[in-house]
Amino acid sequence: MIYITRREQFNAAHKLFREEWSDEKNMEVFGKCSNPNWHGHNYELFVTVKGEINPETGFVIDLKTLKDIIRRYITDKLDHKNVNLDVDFMKGKMASTEVLAVEIFNELKTHLGEREVTLHKVKLVETENNFVEYYGEQPD
Amino acid sequence: MIYITRREQFNAAHKLFREEWSDEKNMEVFGKCSNPNWHGHNYELFVTVKGEINPETGFVIDLKTLKDIIRRYITDKLDHKNVNLDVDFMKGKMASTEVLAVEIFNELKTHLGEREVTLHKVKLVETENNFVEYYGEQPD
Amino acid sequence: MIYITRREQFNAAHKLFREEWSDEKNMEVFGKCSNPNWHGHNYELFVTVKGEINPETGFVIDLKTLKDIIRRYITDKLDHKNVNLDVDFMKGKMASTEVLAVEIFNELKTHLGEREVTLHKVKLVETENNFVEYYGEQPD
Amino acid sequence: MIYITRREQFNAAHKLFREEWSDEKNMEVFGKCSNPNWHGHNYELFVTVKGEINPETGFVIDLKTLKDIIRRYITDKLDHKNVNLDVDFMKGKMASTEVLAVEIFNELKTHLGEREVTLHKVKLVETENNFVEYYGEQPD
Amino acid sequence: MIYITRREQFNAAHKLFREEWSDEKNMEVFGKCSNPNWHGHNYELFVTVKGEINPETGFVIDLKTLKDIIRRYITDKLDHKNVNLDVDFMKGKMASTEVLAVEIFNELKTHLGEREVTLHKVKLVETENNFVEYYGEQPD
Amino acid sequence: MIYITRREQFNAAHKLFREEWSDEKNMEVFGKCSNPNWHGHNYELFVTVKGEINPETGFVIDLKTLKDIIRRYITDKLDHKNVNLDVDFMKGKMASTEVLAVEIFNELKTHLGEREVTLHKVKLVETENNFVEYYGEQPD
Repeated sequence: MIYITRREQFNAAHKLFREEWSDEKNMEVFGKCSNPNWHGHNYELFVTVKGEINPETGFVIDLKTLKDIIRRYITDKLDHKNVNLDVDFMKGKMASTEVLAVEIFNELKTHLGEREVTLHKVKLVETENNFVEYYGEQPD
Repeated sequence: MIYITRREQFNAAHKLFREEWSDEKNMEVFGKCSNPNWHGHNYELFVTVKGEINPETGFVIDLKTLKDIIRRYITDKLDHKNVNLDVDFMKGKMASTEVLAVEIFNELKTHLGEREVTLHKVKLVETENNFVEYYGEQPD
Repeated sequence: MIYITRREQFNAAHKLFREEWSDEKNMEVFGKCSNPNWHGHNYELFVTVKGEINPETGFVIDLKTLKDIIRRYITDKLDHKNVNLDVDFMKGKMASTEVLAVEIFNELKTHLGEREVTLHKVKLVETENNFVEYYGEQPD
Repeated sequence: MIYITRREQFNAAHKLFREEWSDEKNMEVFGKCSNPNWHGHNYELFVTVKGEINPETGFVIDLKTLKDIIRRYITDKLDHKNVNLDVDFMKGKMASTEVLAVEIFNELKTHLGEREVTLHKVKLVETENNFVEYYGEQPD
Repeated sequence: MIYITRREQFNAAHKLFREEWSDEKNMEVFGKCSNPNWHGHNYELFVTVKGEINPETGFVIDLKTLKDIIRRYITDKLDHKNVNLDVDFMKGKMASTEVLAVEIFNELKTHLGEREVTLHKVKLVETENNFVEYYGEQPD
Repeated sequence: MIYITRREQFNAAHKLFREEWSDEKNMEVFGKCSNPNWHGHNYELFVTVKGEINPETGFVIDLKTLKDIIRRYITDKLDHKNVNLDVDFMKGKMASTEVLAVEIFNELKTHLGEREVTLHKVKLVETENNFVEYYGEQPD
């Protein structure tokens, strides 16, 4: 069993807020992250899959395949977009790093499908000072 | 003469567009950077000043002073904000990295005022793949 | 269960030595790390906590809370200090990266107290070429 | 139990190909990584060992010892070399990041021998966008 | 006048040697960089152009244009290639970082042609410990 | 004319203070940087030299030569040392980044001597948030 990780990036806007709350309540709970006119980040996404090495190729998975799946189902939907407004799999959800990481994991799990590798981890870096890691429902 | 640089950061939303243009024209010229619902970045700002070393302190300038000026006049206005909508010195201007760097330089020049150091350069990093440098009207 | 990590930094002096040993013995065991007049590092501290996402906020923990605890109990005591001489929770202990990481973990565990998250890991980076990770007494 | 990691680097050439395949078949499976005249990377190698802290030294292991073993048995053989042609422990093997990480792990396990620490993980970074992690035959 | 920089990357093999010299002479002058079976690097290329801001777009140059030129004429020819053997503009030249930076500058100058911006600098990073900068025949 | 830069590092302790001042006065002027028991940094030193390319080797200067000079005269004296107490060329001087950069430049200029390259710049990085650049008495 070996683990391989692919990094992708996306630049997106978001805010943290609940529509049913006043601006004051949102500011109290979410601070500057609730700025009504949005703010944004250069997100870094690290996707880790695990599997056995194919003796013919030396690969666990062709990284080009993994890259194409990440781009098609995740980063093409997020890059130069608004996480709250533009992203199908985030509709009606809080646009926190935690929730975004979970939803990315679930999307990837679906779209990886039956395959020679298993999705192991999604790591989502929001700034150089904070990141989130999610291993699916049964944490490692 | 010696050069000292302070790094600060801000996370902001923006888009590239001209109001008088259609969405199609904006998309044609600015591509995905014109996404109507905004996108965003973790910007890194490097401010370089130059001067002589004060023999008593070994400093060109107390970096705390420089940091306070940058935060008060620049990054507190930009961090967790929308560059197009929320920032007084960007009102009515294109929110490109180039224009933002020039305006930051001009704001800093004003607020540094008469002092032991001269503003030398503003470097503004938008993503790991592109950045802008501005030295004022008489380039170095 | 999801994992969230906050990075903080501190710049500190230290040395590796045992008072009851001669300078020669200290040099033999600890090499240049035992320089009698100290040396120092820009330490990077990564604190990882784990918990469930609060559906109302999308947070595992408000990162501002986590940051405040780390700064108050850990990095404010270490930043611009001497690890061997100035830090209450390091008194009488070896100032190695390993011991410092364990003591930081134990301090954080105490000061996080009963809370919605559990302390998962402390990662302490001493230089770009070495770092230590500690998961508490029952390693993960 | 505490984990300590040492980073080393090496600059090497390699290609992905199977001699018994035609250039076309190799290009089809391995893409540009099969360029007949080789290509290369600045590899980063992170070696993690685990053990108990020695109360006399505060060390899990003297990092100088770990560094010397990594250099002698691994990076001195790989640095400024061709992974496919010049490296004894890679002879007859696919020069993929996955296989290289496994072989480095196995070499290190042998040469660390009976010692106060156990080899925990080898992480091998090929580019800023991909890396491999291997924990030995019983993954963590 | 403002300066904008685009980063691109390429992974390539090379060696430093003179065919008319013996292996011993090459080893004496170039050390391990002359390994007959090649070695390689993850090169980072920073291309800086300068010009005036277009008031309509806020751009000095559309970075997509700059990226396309760099990729078409430079990095597509270098990425996953052998600098000594595979690259038309390096034929018959020493594959040192210095010479490669100069040749990249000259190629870019030709292919940028008459345009709203001027090529200012090529910075070529070979490893985290060394890089070369070239400003054309009249250095800045 | 081409510019080549070598990076070296050193981990050192220092403090900012004037012996003839009280602790209170030192604290007032230098803040936490005057901690009596020292603090420290992982310094990064970038040394840039300029010259013509030697057509036989493709080198401006053999980087091994440059590295050996930097290590012998600069970083071996600073690494795992106290800048205020242990470094011959800093005796009696303020241990600020500015002064240290100037003194390193002057030492290197002396020890490079008459040679095929000229010392162009010393860049000294104290933390990820500040660095100093010095070009000698006639700034570039």
